[in-house]
Amino acid sequence: MLEQLSSPALLKGLTLSQKQALAQEIRDKIIKTVSENGGHLASNLGAVELTIALHSVLDAPRDQLIFDVGHQCYTHKLLTGRYEAFGTLRQQGGLSGFTRPDESAYDLVASGHASDSLSLALGLARARDLQGDSRAVVAVLGDGALTGGMCYEALNDAGQRNTRLVIVLNDNEMSISKNVGSMSKYLTHMRQSSLYRRFKQRLRQAVNRMPKGGGRMERLLTRIKEALKTLLVGDRFFDSLDIDYLGPIDGHDIEEMEKIFKSALTYDRPVVVHVVTKKGKGYPQAEDTPDKYHALSPKNAAPAKGRSCAALVGKWLVEAGARDEKLACISAAMLSGTGLATFERAFPERCFDVGIAEEHAAALAAGMAINGVKPYLALYSTFLQRACDQINITICLNRAPVRLLIDRGGLNGPDGETHQGVFDLGLLRALPGLTLCAPSSLLELKAMLDMSLEAKGPFAIRYPKALPEGDESETLIPYSWGWLKDGQDACLISYGQTLPEAMEAEALLEKQGVSVCVVSARFLKPIDEASVKKIFASCPRVFVAEDSVFCGSLYEELSALRPQGTRVYGRCVPDQYIPQGSVLEQLRLCGLDARSLCAWIEKELASEARHES
Amino acid sequence: MLEQLSSPALLKGLTLSQKQALAQEIRDKIIKTVSENGGHLASNLGAVELTIALHSVLDAPRDQLIFDVGHQCYTHKLLTGRYEAFGTLRQQGGLSGFTRPDESAYDLVASGHASDSLSLALGLARARDLQGDSRAVVAVLGDGALTGGMCYEALNDAGQRNTRLVIVLNDNEMSISKNVGSMSKYLTHMRQSSLYRRFKQRLRQAVNRMPKGGGRMERLLTRIKEALKTLLVGDRFFDSLDIDYLGPIDGHDIEEMEKIFKSALTYDRPVVVHVVTKKGKGYPQAEDTPDKYHALSPKNAAPAKGRSCAALVGKWLVEAGARDEKLACISAAMLSGTGLATFERAFPERCFDVGIAEEHAAALAAGMAINGVKPYLALYSTFLQRACDQINITICLNRAPVRLLIDRGGLNGPDGETHQGVFDLGLLRALPGLTLCAPSSLLELKAMLDMSLEAKGPFAIRYPKALPEGDESETLIPYSWGWLKDGQDACLISYGQTLPEAMEAEALLEKQGVSVCVVSARFLKPIDEASVKKIFASCPRVFVAEDSVFCGSLYEELSALRPQGTRVYGRCVPDQYIPQGSVLEQLRLCGLDARSLCAWIEKELASEARHES
Repeated sequence: MLEQLSSPALLKGLTLSQKQALAQEIRDKIIKTVSENGGHLASNLGAVELTIALHSVLDAPRDQLIFDVGHQCYTHKLLTGRYEAFGTLRQQGGLSGFTRPDESAYDLVASGHASDSLSLALGLARARDLQGDSRAVVAVLGDGALTGGMCYEALNDAGQRNTRLVIVLNDNEMSISKNVGSMSKYLTHMRQSSLYRRFKQRLRQAVNRMPKGGGRMERLLTRIKEALKTLLVGDRFFDSLDIDYLGPIDGHDIEEMEKIFKSALTYDRPVVVHVVTKKGKGYPQAEDTPDKYHALSPKNAAPAKGRSCAALVGKWLVEAGARDEKLACISAAMLSGTGLATFERAFPERCFDVGIAEEHAAALAAGMAINGVKPYLALYSTFLQRACDQINITICLNRAPVRLLIDRGGLNGPDGETHQGVFDLGLLRALPGLTLCAPSSLLELKAMLDMSLEAKGPFAIRYPKALPEGDESETLIPYSWGWLKDGQDACLISYGQTLPEAMEAEALLEKQGVSVCVVSARFLKPIDEASVKKIFASCPRVFVAEDSVFCGSLYEELSALRPQGTRVYGRCVPDQYIPQGSVLEQLRLCGLDARSLCAWIEKELASEARHES
Repeated sequence: MLEQLSSPALLKGLTLSQKQALAQEIRDKIIKTVSENGGHLASNLGAVELTIALHSVLDAPRDQLIFDVGHQCYTHKLLTGRYEAFGTLRQQGGLSGFTRPDESAYDLVASGHASDSLSLALGLARARDLQGDSRAVVAVLGDGALTGGMCYEALNDAGQRNTRLVIVLNDNEMSISKNVGSMSKYLTHMRQSSLYRRFKQRLRQAVNRMPKGGGRMERLLTRIKEALKTLLVGDRFFDSLDIDYLGPIDGHDIEEMEKIFKSALTYDRPVVVHVVTKKGKGYPQAEDTPDKYHALSPKNAAPAKGRSCAALVGKWLVEAGARDEKLACISAAMLSGTGLATFERAFPERCFDVGIAEEHAAALAAGMAINGVKPYLALYSTFLQRACDQINITICLNRAPVRLLIDRGGLNGPDGETHQGVFDLGLLRALPGLTLCAPSSLLELKAMLDMSLEAKGPFAIRYPKALPEGDESETLIPYSWGWLKDGQDACLISYGQTLPEAMEAEALLEKQGVSVCVVSARFLKPIDEASVKKIFASCPRVFVAEDSVFCGSLYEELSALRPQGTRVYGRCVPDQYIPQGSVLEQLRLCGLDARSLCAWIEKELASEARHES
C-alpha cells in the first residue's frame, strides 16, 4: 500500500482499518531501514499513527506541518513521496534524517536542533495572517523539546497575540533519555487525568459562558470559574499562558486523533493538543529500553579510527569523582551520548540532567563553580551554540572554573548539517580567560582531564566522537604543543580527529621522500607561543589542517603571527554546510583526509619550487 | 543616616520609621547621582524598599543575594559600603552600574544580561547543599527577565530537584518598556487577586492536609483539592512547575515584605515571592513615563561623533514599511533602544516585541521569512550572543532572508564589560550564506538598508550607536569596499566607528608627510575580493583597525590572504573584557582612537625603514 501512496492526499480515501494496516507497513519499513542505516528509531516508531492522522486531516503542502528536531519525521517522509528513496536515509547524497526543504516541498524547514518549532510555526502563522492567507500551521514537538526555554518564549508570545496555531505535543515521557524537570512531572499528572476528559469537555463550554467583568462579585465569579476549570480541564500551565489545551488523547488511536485534530483546526487562536504516545511502539526491544533505541548506528559503518572519547570521559569522571567529593556533573539531556550516564549511576546526587536547556546548564554550572564545587558540563559542540552568551558573560566574565566537556567537536557523520561541531572555535577562542584544549588522542584527553581538576578559571576540552590511543611514551606538558614527528621540508599542525589523518599523510609523504614535521596543537587557547616561535624559526612552510571553519581557526591566527618569509597554508572546513555522510566522507569532502592532505602538501611544495626556480 | 551605614548588618538595629527615612535618603542619592552620571533610574527607584527589606532579614554576605541583570542593585551598593564611591558610578575606573565581585564581597556575580539569575542562584544553592552548608540563597528578578526562556528552564529544574531557594519576583509590569507576553497578562491577573490572600493562606494549610493517593477516589479528591487550591492560592503557572508561591505583596511596604521574606526563608524548597513595585517610585516623571527613565545618559557626556543610527533605522523602516506591506519588525524588549518604537507607532500590526527572548525572536523571524514576509530583527550586538544557534541553524541553514539589524556593534561606553559588541564578527562571519555589512557612516547605513529590502538570504547590518553623516558625493556599490582616501605609504582599512578615527589618523599622518590610503571595509562577508587584490597589489603595508576581538576579525582573514612580501598589521580589541568608560576612553584603551592609530602606523613604518636600511 505504502508504495502506491504518492501523495498524502491519497490518505483521505483510506478506511480506518486500511490506515492501521498502513501504520504496520510503515513501522516495518522504518525498522528495516534504520537497522541498516542507523538513525532515530524509537521516536519515529512512536509517531507513526500521529503522522497518519495529521496528514489525513491536513491539506499539505498548502497546510504547513513542521516537526521539532525532525527526528520523528520518517513517517512524514514515507507519506510524501519518498518511499523509493528511503533506503538512502542518512547516507551520503541520500535522504536526510531530518526535514530538508531541498528534499521535498512538504518539508518547510531544515531541522535538527530542538525546541525551535513553536517559534518557527508562529513565524509561519504570522506571515500567513499578515498576507491574509488562511492555511493551517501545525507544529509537532516532543515533551523533551518542551524542556527548552525557547518553547516557553514562543508560548508566551503566541498567547499574547492570539495567533492561530495548532501545537501537537507528542508526549512519550522521554526526551532522549527519560525526560526531566517539573514540566515532565506535570505532564504525567495530566496524562493520568484522561478519566475526566469527555465529561469535562462538555462542562467546559458551560463554564465559558459564565460572565466576565471587573467588579468584586465578578472577580469572585471569575475565581470560581477558574477553580471549576481546573477541576474540569485539569490544565494549569498552558492555561496560565493563555493557550488553549485539548487532551490528553491516545497517540496510537488514529480515529480519535483525527477527530481532535479537526476540532483543533477550527480554533482561531493557539491550541495545544496533548497526544500520549509510546516511544518505540511496535518494536518490543525499543519499547522496553527506548533510550537505547533512541538512535542507532549504521549496521555496516566503517570502523571508527579509535575508541569512544565519551567512554573514557565517563570512566575518568567516576574515578575522579570518587577521589574528589567536590566534582559534580551537568548534562543537557545528553547523559548517555556524553558518557555521563556512568557518573550518574555512581553519584546520582552529584549529577544534574537539566533537559534540553543548554543556557540554563551553563549558568547553573557557573553558580556551582562560584560556590566552590567543580562542575563538569558536557555538551555536544553543536549544542554549545545555544549557550554562547552564558559561556561568555555568566562563566568567563565571572572567571568561574566551569569545566566544559565539548563532545562531537569537528565533523560528525550521518546527522549532517545540523550536527557538525565546526563552529565552536570562533565562539570559544574569542572569550577572555578561557582555556581551550583539543586532544588528538585518548592519552592527551586523559591528561587534559587530569589538568582540569585544578583549573582556576573556565576550562574547555573539545574532542570528536572517537580518537586513537596515542603514544604512551610521550609526556604531555600543560599548555605545550606536542612534537609527534620531526621533518625538514614542512611543518604540519593539526589537532582533534584531523591529527591522525595528518600522521597518515606524513607517512605517505615520507614514502615520496618528503620529510614533514607533525605538531599536535593540543592547546588552542592560549596557543603555545614557544612552539609557534620554534616552528616559524625552523620551518619556512607551515601547513595547518583543522575540521573547523576558517573564521576563528588556528590557521588564521597563525597567519597573522607569521614572520616575513614564512608561508602558512591552511585547510579548514569550507564556508558551506557540510552534508551527511560518514566522517571519512566528510573529511574527504573538505580535503582533510590523509590522501588529500598529502596531495595538498605535495602540490604546494611543487608550486613553491617552481616559483623559486 | 546612609553615610553611617557601613554594613547591611546595621539595618537590623533600625526601626521601621528609620528604614522608611533611609529609603528616602537612598532615593535622593540615586536620583542625584544618575542625573549626573547616567544609568538605570526607574528600576532602581522601584527596588529601594525591597532591597532594604531583604538586607534586613538576610545575613549577607554569608547569605547570598543576587540581582538579575543587576540594573536594580544601586540600593544594594549603597547599603554595602559603597556610599562614598557612589559618585563614580559608571565612570572609567569607578563603580559599575551592575554587580561586580571585584568591587565588593557582597556582589556574588558579574551581571548585566537578563534572565540568568535563577540558574546562577540554583547553582549556588546546589553547591551549598553538596557541601552541607545552610546559607540562604536569594535571587531578585524582574517580570521582564521572566520573559526569557532560561528562567523557565531554571524553574523546571528547581521544581524537580526541590532545591531550597528564594526567588523574589520584582513585578513592576515593565521590562525595559511595557512588558509583553501572556506571562505578563497572567501576573496582572495575579496582582488583582490580593484581596483573597490572607484568607487563602489559612485555608491552604487545611487543603494541604487532605490525603494523597493513587486510587480512583483519591484521584477525584486530588482534583477537588487542586480546584480549591486554584480558588484559594490563585496561582497556576508556578504551581504547575511545582514551585511554591507567596504573594502578591506590596513592594514598598517594608514591614510586610520582611514578614513574608522571613517566612519564605523557612521553606525547604523553591519558593517565589511575588512583590509588586512601582517602577520609578518617588520620582514623578519616572513614575509616569518609566520607559523614558529606564536608563539615562550622563549629563556631561562627550558629544558622540555623529548622529544616532537607531533614529535613522526607525525612520527608514517607517518609510520602507509604507511602501512595502511585507516588511515587518521584531524586537526583543528593545523597541526604544533600536529605533523600532517609531515603526511600532506607525504599523503596530506588523511590529512584534517578544520580550527578552532573543532565541525565539530569531526563529520567529525565520518562520516569517520562509512564508514570504520581510522580517527586520533588531538586536544589540551583545544580546545577539543569545541567538547564535538560531541564527546559524534556524536562519542560515534555511537560507531564510531575515534582516538582522545589529545595533551597538563595537565598543559601547558606560555599561562596560557586559555590553561590548565586540564578539559578533566571530559568530557571524562563520555562518555560510550570511551577508554581513558594517557601515561607517549614516549614508552607508542607509544604502545598506536599501539593499536589504531585496535580500535573497540572511542579511545582517552591524553598526554602533552613532555614526557621522558620510560623504554625499560617494556612490555605494553593493558588496564593494569604499576608497575614501588615496595614499602611497600604507593602506588603512577599517569599518564602523573606528573608521572615523582612521580618517582622523590619516589627516594627522598627512601633516607629517605620511600618505595613507583609507578603505571602508563596509562588507565583512563576503569580503570584497577585488578590493583586497587591488590593495595587496598596490600597497605593501596594510593596517587593519577594528573594534572587534582578534578571533574572527577581518585582520586575521586578511593575514591569511596576504601574498608574500606584503605586511598586514592589525589592531583589534585585546583579549580581555573592556571595562566601562566613554566610547572614546575605551577606544584609547584599545589603541583604536585617531592619535593611537597615527602613532602605531608611524612606529611600524619607522621600524620597517630601520629593518630595510
